[in-house]
Amino acid sequence: MTDDPADGLTDAPRRRGRRAGGEDTKAALVEAARAVFAEQGYQGATVRAIAARAGVDAAMVNHWFGGKQGLFAAITHLPFDPVELIETIVHGDRETLAERIIRNFVPIWDSAEGGFAAVMLSVASQETAAAIMGQFFTKAVFGRITEVIGVDRSEWRAVLCGTQILGLGVVRYVLKLEPLASADVDTIVGLVAPNLQRYLTGDIDTIQ
Amino acid sequence: MTDDPADGLTDAPRRRGRRAGGEDTKAALVEAARAVFAEQGYQGATVRAIAARAGVDAAMVNHWFGGKQGLFAAITHLPFDPVELIETIVHGDRETLAERIIRNFVPIWDSAEGGFAAVMLSVASQETAAAIMGQFFTKAVFGRITEVIGVDRSEWRAVLCGTQILGLGVVRYVLKLEPLASADVDTIVGLVAPNLQRYLTGDIDTIQ
Repeated sequence: MTDDPADGLTDAPRRRGRRAGGEDTKAALVEAARAVFAEQGYQGATVRAIAARAGVDAAMVNHWFGGKQGLFAAITHLPFDPVELIETIVHGDRETLAERIIRNFVPIWDSAEGGFAAVMLSVASQETAAAIMGQFFTKAVFGRITEVIGVDRSEWRAVLCGTQILGLGVVRYVLKLEPLASADVDTIVGLVAPNLQRYLTGDIDTIQ
Repeated sequence: MTDDPADGLTDAPRRRGRRAGGEDTKAALVEAARAVFAEQGYQGATVRAIAARAGVDAAMVNHWFGGKQGLFAAITHLPFDPVELIETIVHGDRETLAERIIRNFVPIWDSAEGGFAAVMLSVASQETAAAIMGQFFTKAVFGRITEVIGVDRSEWRAVLCGTQILGLGVVRYVLKLEPLASADVDTIVGLVAPNLQRYLTGDIDTIQ
């Protein structure tokens, strides 16, 4: 989806001797992204608008963050690159894809720094943040996963996965309803993965 | 869960010739409930606290609204009595319980007056409202349903159903993500009911 971001993040800056200036550009982009995501939502925020707000060329977003997802990860302090994590998750046994998704995301949300509620609140007000997170998971995470595994009705599957994951996140981390709030990841996998798996690869031919 | 609310709502007020005073009491309770739900959430708000805020006896809540659920329905303009609707839904084929839940709730949320987003916003800020709705569905709706059908691990089932229904409501009505936002109820039943049904009556013995 983007031009080799890893290359841009490692060799290129050094080669061009732009590290100091680059850090300024990155900081300006992070600040601009926070404002544009809050105003426009994840879907509405364009790389062009964020770059314009930061007063830098739009190519700098791909150069420093590998695209919109990477920038979102940066401003929400996600301790992972969502693009890389998704590439890791999707390769493997298709029938345990939902389990791998839950096993990868729940510990990240559980961690203090990258916690789901903290992530939501770090973007904007909780109201806007819920919308941004919902769009991010439906479009960037599950939209990408269903695209890579090449499954039918991918748009439907992505939005259905979004309902389950957003609901899980809100009930566990924001509402903190028991027994879900204190459950360990194995328990959550056993309970939720079969439902998420149906949305990912199961029979959803009942669409009218 | 409450003392015969139907009786209290019909004969008693007329018998005692208190209709005018009763309307005042009802209005005071609705106003107090709105404030207490917003401050305490659905779970935290007690009938006693709402009645105290309204300056009336706690028995008036059961008398006029059949309990906390009825009062919640009144302030959120739900065009149904949740207690009665749940009693109707739970009686019937257990294997189509999830379908009946979706077929009953989605049209209510779709309607302009009782819309899910409108209901959420009518209570308080969207942030607080999401928490209140989440608690209401997990505790009052699914907590009651799993209790009536007498299923094992009912507390777990209620909270899992809560994740799916809250996620469905937020993605369809608040985020308005397609293709879910425009889908008809038959399509939603085909897609979501099997997942909700597993949470209600399916095998969730994988709990650690």
